[in-house]
Amino acid sequence: MKNIDVCLTPELLHQYNLENKIVVVVDILRATSCMVSGFSNGVTEIIPVSTLEECKALQEKGYLAAAERNGSKAEGFDLGNSPFEYLDSKMKGEKVAVTTTNGTLAINKSLAAKEILIGAFLNLNALVEYLKNKEEDIIILCAGWKGKFNLEDTLFAGALAHQLKEDFQFACDAPLAAEAMYLTAKKDMMNYMRDSSHAKRLSKLNVVKDIEFCVQESIYDIIPYLDGKSLRLKK
Amino acid sequence: MKNIDVCLTPELLHQYNLENKIVVVVDILRATSCMVSGFSNGVTEIIPVSTLEECKALQEKGYLAAAERNGSKAEGFDLGNSPFEYLDSKMKGEKVAVTTTNGTLAINKSLAAKEILIGAFLNLNALVEYLKNKEEDIIILCAGWKGKFNLEDTLFAGALAHQLKEDFQFACDAPLAAEAMYLTAKKDMMNYMRDSSHAKRLSKLNVVKDIEFCVQESIYDIIPYLDGKSLRLKK
Repeated sequence: MKNIDVCLTPELLHQYNLENKIVVVVDILRATSCMVSGFSNGVTEIIPVSTLEECKALQEKGYLAAAERNGSKAEGFDLGNSPFEYLDSKMKGEKVAVTTTNGTLAINKSLAAKEILIGAFLNLNALVEYLKNKEEDIIILCAGWKGKFNLEDTLFAGALAHQLKEDFQFACDAPLAAEAMYLTAKKDMMNYMRDSSHAKRLSKLNVVKDIEFCVQESIYDIIPYLDGKSLRLKK
Repeated sequence: MKNIDVCLTPELLHQYNLENKIVVVVDILRATSCMVSGFSNGVTEIIPVSTLEECKALQEKGYLAAAERNGSKAEGFDLGNSPFEYLDSKMKGEKVAVTTTNGTLAINKSLAAKEILIGAFLNLNALVEYLKNKEEDIIILCAGWKGKFNLEDTLFAGALAHQLKEDFQFACDAPLAAEAMYLTAKKDMMNYMRDSSHAKRLSKLNVVKDIEFCVQESIYDIIPYLDGKSLRLKK
């Protein structure tokens, strides 16, 4: 039977063989939620980069430049990392260069995979429908927070693993734990997340609304994937 | 307020500053459960070592030699890693040298800590009583399985974090998640663990009885700690 596994932080990714696997990268608060929101609102291309400098260089080539450091918008950039910035009708047809603390790093660490997809609660069902008929094993890679485990990415991993368990078997304890957490949390996701370290950081920055937006399930029916150095929409 | 944190596998321990911290090492199935069982049944000293060779060398000096590799007793050794082997009255007064896949490694990686304690469900309350009045921050280090997250060590971490949350605040999302898993699992720990990868391995090796033994809470009122290279009992 096909396997599904969960990698709880990019720092553990060396333990996983990515060859011929599909990796779903998730950074719920807020990189991958922003990406899914952007594509759903007309963005045509997103390039994830590691540094502010690379992001600036693409800004000069006509890309909107999005940069977050430590949870806030970086100075001199067009966009921060709130998904609401990506809902604007002005985003239609735009190309975006983005650098984030954890999400970009997770994508760059996954390059050995056969396919890299972008996951968020916002496009959960689209991923399930796409993945359930695939022959490849799946690894859900949680971007985490500076190398550490985080709650919201693990909850998403649990949601996706749960929806795919009829077609894939759990490869180790991580999907099992993530699924148990998700099933406990799903009745009241916001309450469950209120205690998380990330929510505490965000709450200081007055963006609880972002969290409420990012935990909505399956409001967008799209799948971004990595095509060379760019993220694009699956047709 | 004092902090309590959980490190989900030794491979993430470099992210934690151990200085002046108390580390509780946990390898529920089965190294630390065996250690707690052994001390409770009269063992006077346990030396954790990394290799079979070191273990053999101590055997020649009069130690009972305990060795497990991949879940089974290694050839030519006195003890494997079933806690039942440590319940024998013949253990009284004995010294034991032990090498295990994950537990020894976790102890050796924790040497920078101020104090290293051995944790298991079997001595949970003893740990709570000892730790709740300490001034130092606490890190619960899950030994995991070959560098990966595992369920049973995380459940123990959740149990200990839960019992200490009146006196310590959670330092990140890992104790929060571990606590949630424990609170979900505690009503029927055996059923919850039946799906775990470790339980599946052990079930193949016909030692489900070991798991039933190891998930018993607080049947022993002792705390082993690292004293130089040896584990001894706290007075």
